[in-house]
Amino acid sequence: MILTVTLNTALDVTYDVDELRPDASHRVRAVRERAGGKGINVARVLHAMGREVLCTGLLGGPTGARIAADLATADLPSAMSPIDGESRRTVSVVSAATGGSTLLNEPGPHVTDEEWQRFLVHFRSLAARARVVVCSGSLPPGVPETAYDLLVRIARDEDARTIVDADGMPLARSLEAGPDIVKPNGAELVASTGLADEARAMRWMQGAGAGAVVATFGPEGIRALTVDGAWTARLDRPIAGVNPTGAGDAVAAALAAGLEDGRDWPSMLRDAVTWSAAAVTAPLAGDLDALTLDRVRSSVRVEAA
Amino acid sequence: MILTVTLNTALDVTYDVDELRPDASHRVRAVRERAGGKGINVARVLHAMGREVLCTGLLGGPTGARIAADLATADLPSAMSPIDGESRRTVSVVSAATGGSTLLNEPGPHVTDEEWQRFLVHFRSLAARARVVVCSGSLPPGVPETAYDLLVRIARDEDARTIVDADGMPLARSLEAGPDIVKPNGAELVASTGLADEARAMRWMQGAGAGAVVATFGPEGIRALTVDGAWTARLDRPIAGVNPTGAGDAVAAALAAGLEDGRDWPSMLRDAVTWSAAAVTAPLAGDLDALTLDRVRSSVRVEAA
Repeated sequence: MILTVTLNTALDVTYDVDELRPDASHRVRAVRERAGGKGINVARVLHAMGREVLCTGLLGGPTGARIAADLATADLPSAMSPIDGESRRTVSVVSAATGGSTLLNEPGPHVTDEEWQRFLVHFRSLAARARVVVCSGSLPPGVPETAYDLLVRIARDEDARTIVDADGMPLARSLEAGPDIVKPNGAELVASTGLADEARAMRWMQGAGAGAVVATFGPEGIRALTVDGAWTARLDRPIAGVNPTGAGDAVAAALAAGLEDGRDWPSMLRDAVTWSAAAVTAPLAGDLDALTLDRVRSSVRVEAA
Repeated sequence: MILTVTLNTALDVTYDVDELRPDASHRVRAVRERAGGKGINVARVLHAMGREVLCTGLLGGPTGARIAADLATADLPSAMSPIDGESRRTVSVVSAATGGSTLLNEPGPHVTDEEWQRFLVHFRSLAARARVVVCSGSLPPGVPETAYDLLVRIARDEDARTIVDADGMPLARSLEAGPDIVKPNGAELVASTGLADEARAMRWMQGAGAGAVVATFGPEGIRALTVDGAWTARLDRPIAGVNPTGAGDAVAAALAAGLEDGRDWPSMLRDAVTWSAAAVTAPLAGDLDALTLDRVRSSVRVEAA
């Protein structure tokens, strides 16, 4: 089983407007809601690919209840830990005129120390049943910056492999615990290390403790730095995407599936690019476009770097 | 007692961001929530001015429960009619860099015919206790465009005076019922009549049935066309405002208070400009800045037009 962790779960709300213009008043044409947060989107991808998956994280208030209801509707197994605060919303404003999407991310509820300690106990019991643990996304206020360091250590105690897909300090502070894979994107590489050179930043992360560094560069593909070697993986021709936000979560999902199977790096990276392309062409984050999956697998190039 | 009607009640959510940029991702620094909808803001102003007021309208779902809780916190008496659908949110994104505010208005829940009929019965019982009824704002889906026409007729049957502060068809369709005052702004005058000339549009509205037309023109003040004559009212010097959205609701509140007292037009219009200036300088819609109230009253000029 693959366990995905979403500490800052969200109700992802999408507003369709004619065109977003700063300082103007807009009529929202349609409102859509969906359970979100990166770990939940990773779980959606794994679930769509027929993998056994479990979502955990923190959930509270009426917005938390709505997130739970949406997980149930999507048949996504979850074992969330309750908090008193109210789970956050994100609002994505989609302009019909441009197709552009403007994201507003609420910071999330304050988590008390007692709630965090209770989550750690809960997490250990779930990690004991998991072969792979994926820790994704931002931390709500009150959760310590060392959260992913702690979760990686607990997961390893329980013989689970680990992936950290985060940003800034929570990512940097997780390295010393030795996660099997960290999966930053280009911007996160720079933000977490302060190093503008991407190759140096990847080496620094590996030196600081990560088993492997798999960095995503949007349409330019993926670079992997591992103890077995370095690779690049990309499509041999560009693909038209409508939903770039889900691409990184699909990469994390493919890596988790590969770790669970114990597959080699070229095979894992091929899946990562394929799943990512299928996520980019699906209309909603966390879905996969089945036609694209079939079509692009053979056009992925994996090369030793 | 003054009864304010808000058929499309809202939870007004404010997001503080550094600067809103279309197609970018934003961290929301702070989230604030408040019961809203124009009728509720009119009631806030009247309550702040010591008037006996009652809010009615349609309310549903968890968001409706939150609106009700905020009304209770603000000590605003309310008698809402329940619906199955969920009350809407509005999101106001305030950019720290520019001070500008970008508004996103959800359309509102679908109201069934049965819910609407039930509201009409409820409204009649409240209107029987009211001296003035103020109908404000947009209609949620399912409520007929003739809603304000119906409410004005019922209110008059119950010997209440009426003000309609609305836009487009709901405003245009209310005129035949003969509301005592309609209060469009410049843009609404044009949108409701199709006439670009504001003076002609005001005469057209009066000809179509409105007892008086009081039109607001932002910092340029107010023009009133009544059976007793025509006036303009404005500040003799401009005032720096932080919250222009509440200005129109403060005008409606002042007119309602004037109708309840049976005061003459120059006195009502002086209050309307004064309250509006105090609303513009208060940080939150529906509040009044007490210092401004005191300071500007003597600088309001009311002139026969």
